[in-house]
Amino acid sequence: MAYKRTAIIGIGLIGGSFALAAKRAGIVETVVGVARSEETLQVALQIGAADEVTTNPAQAVREADLVYIAVPVGATRRVFAQIRDSLEPGALVTDAGSTKREVMRAAAELLPDHVTFIGGHPMAGSEQAGVQAARADLFENAVYFLTATQATSPDEMDRMQQVVRALGAIPSVQTAHNHDRIAAATSHLPHLVSAALASTVAKLAGDNQEVQSFVGTGFFDTTRLAEGSPEVWRDILMSNADNLGGSLEELMAALQALAAALHKADSDACERLLTEAQQARWRLTNQ
Amino acid sequence: MAYKRTAIIGIGLIGGSFALAAKRAGIVETVVGVARSEETLQVALQIGAADEVTTNPAQAVREADLVYIAVPVGATRRVFAQIRDSLEPGALVTDAGSTKREVMRAAAELLPDHVTFIGGHPMAGSEQAGVQAARADLFENAVYFLTATQATSPDEMDRMQQVVRALGAIPSVQTAHNHDRIAAATSHLPHLVSAALASTVAKLAGDNQEVQSFVGTGFFDTTRLAEGSPEVWRDILMSNADNLGGSLEELMAALQALAAALHKADSDACERLLTEAQQARWRLTNQ
Repeated sequence: MAYKRTAIIGIGLIGGSFALAAKRAGIVETVVGVARSEETLQVALQIGAADEVTTNPAQAVREADLVYIAVPVGATRRVFAQIRDSLEPGALVTDAGSTKREVMRAAAELLPDHVTFIGGHPMAGSEQAGVQAARADLFENAVYFLTATQATSPDEMDRMQQVVRALGAIPSVQTAHNHDRIAAATSHLPHLVSAALASTVAKLAGDNQEVQSFVGTGFFDTTRLAEGSPEVWRDILMSNADNLGGSLEELMAALQALAAALHKADSDACERLLTEAQQARWRLTNQ
Repeated sequence: MAYKRTAIIGIGLIGGSFALAAKRAGIVETVVGVARSEETLQVALQIGAADEVTTNPAQAVREADLVYIAVPVGATRRVFAQIRDSLEPGALVTDAGSTKREVMRAAAELLPDHVTFIGGHPMAGSEQAGVQAARADLFENAVYFLTATQATSPDEMDRMQQVVRALGAIPSVQTAHNHDRIAAATSHLPHLVSAALASTVAKLAGDNQEVQSFVGTGFFDTTRLAEGSPEVWRDILMSNADNLGGSLEELMAALQALAAALHKADSDACERLLTEAQQARWRLTNQ
């Protein structure tokens, strides 16, 4: 199983790491990197993530038997429209978007029947962004979600799982519905909470210069996600707004329960809620 | 400046680290460690954090010229009542509680006039708890809040600041009111949010076994605080409930704003709120 010509559309941290990992595993030969910035493309060539580069997605996918799309979720539809008429019959097309329903709908609408599309979402990332942070080992031991279309055959899904395993990752096949519902709780809700918390503390601080001396590791950890790219996260949150709405309601109820215990000076209720939270985290993080 | 006999009431992570750091700096001679558990006391002796040990706080403070109280905030009042009749005239008494108003009130009520009380709150901690995790360098470069009573003289505060500097920490004198108000936003609110988030994700997950494969570093970081001791944090949150109430209302408003942007599919509002959060965090973490 080696792909002769692989187009990577959006050769940043994830796209570049895919290229390095797939090359190291010997499952891809020539890689064509696509980005909007010439600077990114030059770095991709320098670090060996791409053999050829172009700013033109349609040109990149010509003769490619593997197409890997790693752009913000909201840009995926546009990429599909750009490449659809240039895709090679039999090509395997996949993406790395953090939500799956919108991408799967767009693929069904826009991609030709003569290619295979399988949705993907690697649970990997880094504090650093951009192709300069790409690493061949980024996917090692990471869970890598895969989502079939109506047309995906078991053989095709099997082939895609082999690709994922070659990266060192652990494939997990999910429906788009299930993926987005669980990700709303485990990933998108924490992001939203982290952002709301950072803004709130800043607002409460006002222009009090002393506040910085009060900021410790607790604030630092709980708000780390708020550093994420607003463009990328806007797309992720918007494309999962329905699931997030329900998750947010549950969170508000949990905050209200804590607020009520504090307001009533109900020490036992407060301790019980904190104990439940501690046990919940142990359970979810498998401790 | 060397204290001949120092009583440390609650010789755990903080109390034990104070002993090690103060001994290393040569500012204390004999240390008497107090804890409820004999096992803790034996460890304190083994690691050199205490020279003598007892389970009796009143006995420990006899002839002590420095008394360091490092127990959960809610237990401080009880300790004051236990030691008040045994304190040496002229002794310096201090604590390490995470909120200051309740402790300052209890000190004014319960401690005799012939001792000096100065409230303290070192911004230091560790993932590990207990005296076995104590380290002489725990306070290095940490901010160490100090709070005066009505009776504290400038000389006495100066002496306390010297003690703090000897630990390698950075003293910051605050009123109890100001300390608790800012800490509600920067420390207690993040804790509460972290706990509510952990419980909510567990509730949304139900008994779905697949959820663990979705849990990544984002959830891990945002909920780390939820691992904190429910007993210790119950005391901290309850003793700052009024300030926390206001902070929680602001947080709910921030969450509602994000929920509204998602509900209305208002992409620009969503990106603007995320950008504000990103900038808020940069500002507060001094990046």
